[in-house]
Amino acid sequence: MKRQVPVITLVTDFGLQDEYVGVMKGVILSINSRVQLVDITHAITRHDIVQAALVANSTFRFFPINAIHVIVVDPGVGGKRKVIGCKKEGHFFIAPDNGALSLVVQDGKVDELCAITNQAYFLKPVSHTFHGRDIFAPVAAHLSKDLDMSRLGQKIRLSDIVKLDISAPVLSSQRELVGKILSVDAFGNLMTNIDEETLTRFGHEQGLEDVVIHLGGTKIQGVSTSYDSVQTGSPVAVVGSRKLLEIAVNQADASTYFKAGVGQTITVKLAAPKSGALR
Amino acid sequence: MKRQVPVITLVTDFGLQDEYVGVMKGVILSINSRVQLVDITHAITRHDIVQAALVANSTFRFFPINAIHVIVVDPGVGGKRKVIGCKKEGHFFIAPDNGALSLVVQDGKVDELCAITNQAYFLKPVSHTFHGRDIFAPVAAHLSKDLDMSRLGQKIRLSDIVKLDISAPVLSSQRELVGKILSVDAFGNLMTNIDEETLTRFGHEQGLEDVVIHLGGTKIQGVSTSYDSVQTGSPVAVVGSRKLLEIAVNQADASTYFKAGVGQTITVKLAAPKSGALR
Amino acid sequence: MKRQVPVITLVTDFGLQDEYVGVMKGVILSINSRVQLVDITHAITRHDIVQAALVANSTFRFFPINAIHVIVVDPGVGGKRKVIGCKKEGHFFIAPDNGALSLVVQDGKVDELCAITNQAYFLKPVSHTFHGRDIFAPVAAHLSKDLDMSRLGQKIRLSDIVKLDISAPVLSSQRELVGKILSVDAFGNLMTNIDEETLTRFGHEQGLEDVVIHLGGTKIQGVSTSYDSVQTGSPVAVVGSRKLLEIAVNQADASTYFKAGVGQTITVKLAAPKSGALR
Repeated sequence: MKRQVPVITLVTDFGLQDEYVGVMKGVILSINSRVQLVDITHAITRHDIVQAALVANSTFRFFPINAIHVIVVDPGVGGKRKVIGCKKEGHFFIAPDNGALSLVVQDGKVDELCAITNQAYFLKPVSHTFHGRDIFAPVAAHLSKDLDMSRLGQKIRLSDIVKLDISAPVLSSQRELVGKILSVDAFGNLMTNIDEETLTRFGHEQGLEDVVIHLGGTKIQGVSTSYDSVQTGSPVAVVGSRKLLEIAVNQADASTYFKAGVGQTITVKLAAPKSGALR
Repeated sequence: MKRQVPVITLVTDFGLQDEYVGVMKGVILSINSRVQLVDITHAITRHDIVQAALVANSTFRFFPINAIHVIVVDPGVGGKRKVIGCKKEGHFFIAPDNGALSLVVQDGKVDELCAITNQAYFLKPVSHTFHGRDIFAPVAAHLSKDLDMSRLGQKIRLSDIVKLDISAPVLSSQRELVGKILSVDAFGNLMTNIDEETLTRFGHEQGLEDVVIHLGGTKIQGVSTSYDSVQTGSPVAVVGSRKLLEIAVNQADASTYFKAGVGQTITVKLAAPKSGALR
Repeated sequence: MKRQVPVITLVTDFGLQDEYVGVMKGVILSINSRVQLVDITHAITRHDIVQAALVANSTFRFFPINAIHVIVVDPGVGGKRKVIGCKKEGHFFIAPDNGALSLVVQDGKVDELCAITNQAYFLKPVSHTFHGRDIFAPVAAHLSKDLDMSRLGQKIRLSDIVKLDISAPVLSSQRELVGKILSVDAFGNLMTNIDEETLTRFGHEQGLEDVVIHLGGTKIQGVSTSYDSVQTGSPVAVVGSRKLLEIAVNQADASTYFKAGVGQTITVKLAAPKSGALR
């Protein structure tokens, strides 16, 4: 049986205008030309570590075991922040120690964790401005050639690394589930921090088709199964491909429709009991 | 002799901001890591099936035989539309049954055509919002490992699938060829629906250098062989790389110059006869 | 030992909206499916040969020896300009003869140089509008299969090709180093034409931490080693990853901060002597 081709994925905030991503790939291919390079996105909003954390976490499980996921959203480049290596569920991650792995390690489980300090695997001299090229890329390439992670530097503990506070949805006193918008995708769909599991637990008495979602002044009836469960131009709530409650508008842009953006509150309410006669 | 590396191409309207394209690639590589992944474009205007149809048709013949072309411009995702598999001239296509293959099958000839229904080749559970990941990507990956298309689902007939009406140019009563602008490329060049063959047949009496092209209030003399047949900043008509009549402005943007866009009429006229003495 | 996988890199001004880049890749893979394709950038400002020259020169050395670098920024396509092949330091370049290789060959040294004319390696018929597809792509693919460069066409001399005047910084009478902004990257960082070597020579008496950089009405004290040597929102001068003096603003956009753009003058001054007592 043929051996798996190693995969290296890239998440950066470099954009595609400049040659920076291409240069990282050149460094990788100079060390291992037999690698599959996959761009996840280079359009993370500059220095937005929360977005990077979301993307990393909603992506890696779709890749083959042993894939190497490189995250270079690194406002502290050249400063004192560490570069960390992490192995989880058989996947490798290389990221600055700034919270970019917060969601990946949220469950408290990792296979291995280290501070990457062994300059033997760096490009030399290491610049102060482009560790993506000088540290992240060559280290990823060496890992793709089966370098043992223990060679990269000292083991560290999960409690040693920076974690972001990406708050979970809250069950309020009125038995409402209160969440917020975490990000807006290129279609204008609004991703919330309300995950499928929490939502299902919350709505299980009534079924999700009977909850009411409140966003701005608008109410959306029930969680639907697809965007086109509603008419073109109408708002719809679905559990999206990231397994998060997501507000969309069928064939249109929800962020425009709702004039909504990151941080805005969204509330899921149970419907009034159906037993009465008043309605 | 070495075996050809299988090629999978992607056309979507997902953009490159989010991780959606990367996730599709992860799914593909998890099934077949020995594949060449080629992004054709992810910048199809959201839900613009005509644009997807044009791109698919002007691209595939430049790829090796057996390439697998995946088109995910799919406003009906999660609804009742079928997903279809098509083999034509030795190339494979996977697309929603919404007309995206209209131009590819325009000549009425296909090698094979099927409705893709065999869940054995899907990612499970299949979401209602992201068939690119759950159906298109894994099916393409399995095809790249020489899966027989007949395994994907029932054969269907060409008359069973949705076709768009992308109208051809018309020969008017005044012996004018009347077409329209189908799309505008990133350079601002205007692509028309007047194909090289129709144009050549129309102009053969005089030669294409003597026809006059009318767009808005502007006349362009003759069809030239290259953009720089005219001075910088001047408009020029050429048969472009898609073998369609194309209006450009040498080193500038024709869509701005002509304030022209998709759907606008363009007319090709034969010059007045040269036999008289008055001119 | 396993053989290196051949690498072909692409620099174009085609953008990623249209299918042009994908078509070039199709042509390449039809000739050699075992190649690593790397997009350096397709966002060169349309027809900006200076930008292409900068990108080509700051990229190639990070790739493996024998990589093939294809540059299609080609306002003269279909006209009389030549297409040239160049080998330098073991790397191959294919570019229009319009100055795109000016910086690559600036030191006057090349291994080989030829005019690419042998139609045996072109796609036929060669269009007048898309040599990227019809000439550059197939020639690159053939080179990746170890075609000898001498087969592509006649040798030419370095003095025969077009070179741009990308002026060097000037040492003014007041012992000031006067340069200019060459390009602005996607972060808004300002790249100057003042290279590390010239800067170091200029500042060696005092040390680079004591020079003063003047841009617009603003003075920046010293050349720092990283962006975050200064407070968030403050301007900083560093020698960037291209080994050029670069003006940035920590975690912000220098082009906005300085309202500065390409062509603007930047001056590096030695500090006033420290020997006096007045300050």
